[in-house]
Amino acid sequence: MEIKDLIKNLEEFVTEERKNLFASNIKNRTRYLTVVLEDIFQPHNASAVLRTCDCFGVQDVHIIENQNEYDVNPDVALGSQKWLNLYKYNQKENNTKDAISKLKKSGYRIIATTPHTNDVELEVFNLNKGKAAILLGTELRGLSQEALELADEYLKIPMFGFTESFNISVSAAMILHFLTYKLRNSESINWRLSQQEQDEIRLEWLKTSIKDSENILKQLIEK
Amino acid sequence: MEIKDLIKNLEEFVTEERKNLFASNIKNRTRYLTVVLEDIFQPHNASAVLRTCDCFGVQDVHIIENQNEYDVNPDVALGSQKWLNLYKYNQKENNTKDAISKLKKSGYRIIATTPHTNDVELEVFNLNKGKAAILLGTELRGLSQEALELADEYLKIPMFGFTESFNISVSAAMILHFLTYKLRNSESINWRLSQQEQDEIRLEWLKTSIKDSENILKQLIEK
Repeated sequence: MEIKDLIKNLEEFVTEERKNLFASNIKNRTRYLTVVLEDIFQPHNASAVLRTCDCFGVQDVHIIENQNEYDVNPDVALGSQKWLNLYKYNQKENNTKDAISKLKKSGYRIIATTPHTNDVELEVFNLNKGKAAILLGTELRGLSQEALELADEYLKIPMFGFTESFNISVSAAMILHFLTYKLRNSESINWRLSQQEQDEIRLEWLKTSIKDSENILKQLIEK
Repeated sequence: MEIKDLIKNLEEFVTEERKNLFASNIKNRTRYLTVVLEDIFQPHNASAVLRTCDCFGVQDVHIIENQNEYDVNPDVALGSQKWLNLYKYNQKENNTKDAISKLKKSGYRIIATTPHTNDVELEVFNLNKGKAAILLGTELRGLSQEALELADEYLKIPMFGFTESFNISVSAAMILHFLTYKLRNSESINWRLSQQEQDEIRLEWLKTSIKDSENILKQLIEK
């Protein structure tokens, strides 16, 4: 049975409203931007980033766990993790390197968010140059030396006051809000998911929404 | 003694670096936008908003305390409250009305941040129409009915996902980042402080920075 048919069959088990929500949300999902969290200490910060990714349609979040195992804080994430693809990197000796090299192989520019001599201001960051993975580091130390060295570009949020820092969830929100707004208004960037990707994710969303989806799918496939 | 002379005299007590920081920060301060916090329960949220205001040069923050007394959380505010003008409204029976009516008298459009039938999306909000006071409500209930009724306009951040909400510090950051970016790039809006305002604030900043400033000023004035 093809994925389109699986979707069609499973859709009979959800409300019309939910079906429409899936259809409208999937059109706004993107992998043109992705977020990479490196060793986030405070689960509520990471969970708030997941919420932001969901709100702005950023489908994939990569979680590097060199020292800090990240558990989703259900109060803060508000279930957003159910609608995202989370990729964890915690099996290697150097998970930062592992994550970045996989992302580079998938065609991502690696963008470290940090003050740096060569940084670019968020508002003039060039999205036309290709898919971008936004790296966010720990609350205390920022990104690791490894991440900084492996990054292709550096991004900063211009600030004009005395307190020159934002916490991670606030930084992520400003960056993702601004860049996804630019994406949505771009006429030249093909930022939407392919039909195949949309179908795969919609199938996952349906499975998440339907209690006994695994059994239903099994029966469908056997038929 | 004139304010300019007081500044000049006090500047002798701070480092060159600090003097330059004041000079550059004051140029980026604005009262064209102001923030109004109504009954914020969680001090760390309010404190994060103060940090954001400082970072983007929003000088005035109005704090309405109908039910929740707001104390600055020093860990989160990182001292930003020292560089801002905070106005508290907690003496009246209805402090929301008091604050809004004062802001209207000072020429502010009252902008409620909330989903509303007549809301405008952040990205197309018209800054040219005049000074704007951005109202942010509680984490639990949003803005009060009173605030909603007294507001002139309604602003929302467009969202495209399943979790249709941001916490207050995240919302404030996205709004202030976007609007101050637009202000700084506007050729027609006169958003900077007047010379008189700049002098008054720089004098306050100096007083904050110098330990024995009151005594020093007293001696100067007596001379």
